[in-house]
Amino acid sequence: MSHILEKEEVKQCPRQYVLAVHDALNAISGKWKLPIIASLIYGFKRFKDIQNNIEKITPRMLSKELKELELNGIVNRKVYNDTPVLIEYELTDSGKNITTILDAMLDWGLEHRKSSLK
Amino acid sequence: MSHILEKEEVKQCPRQYVLAVHDALNAISGKWKLPIIASLIYGFKRFKDIQNNIEKITPRMLSKELKELELNGIVNRKVYNDTPVLIEYELTDSGKNITTILDAMLDWGLEHRKSSLK
Repeated sequence: MSHILEKEEVKQCPRQYVLAVHDALNAISGKWKLPIIASLIYGFKRFKDIQNNIEKITPRMLSKELKELELNGIVNRKVYNDTPVLIEYELTDSGKNITTILDAMLDWGLEHRKSSLK
Repeated sequence: MSHILEKEEVKQCPRQYVLAVHDALNAISGKWKLPIIASLIYGFKRFKDIQNNIEKITPRMLSKELKELELNGIVNRKVYNDTPVLIEYELTDSGKNITTILDAMLDWGLEHRKSSLK
């Protein structure tokens, strides 16, 4: 796809709108994506540190999820050719910007809980 | 849970933060939730109209999804005791407010596409 739609164009086309929103949804859906992103919000981390941050995630799952996040342009994997090799993970700029979505979700989630209890 | 956390409290506690964001994520995740919410954004609709709006959804799936959205306080089901009985679906106030999340997602999704092509 060579032509990138601008926001106003997308808003006029419900199908495009849903597709663009799905992009964002895919980036953060699933059991582990959000905890991983949250764990990287304050800076880069090594595999073990991320794993220690997240309850019950297995190394195999974490590795799979990090690969997906990397392919998706959310996470950056940096390899330093030290001995032993040092590998660090960090959020890309896009990854950092996900906080704007999380913030909108947090606002909505808290309001929604209040209104559910009325 | 009787005590509802305020935003600043939640932000200081990563686990609470992820939980509150998960509330919002649950409300819109899955294959059909977003298309259904999108189809109700411009006002109430009958079952058949929603079904016609969404490609490939079966009546059984739509019925299941609408029940979940109703339980979750996103969709309101109104029954008019006419003959034949008229049933309409509409977004609750919380449901309408989901547009703030979708808007943040749309902004992010479009920016993310741009930066992926750089």
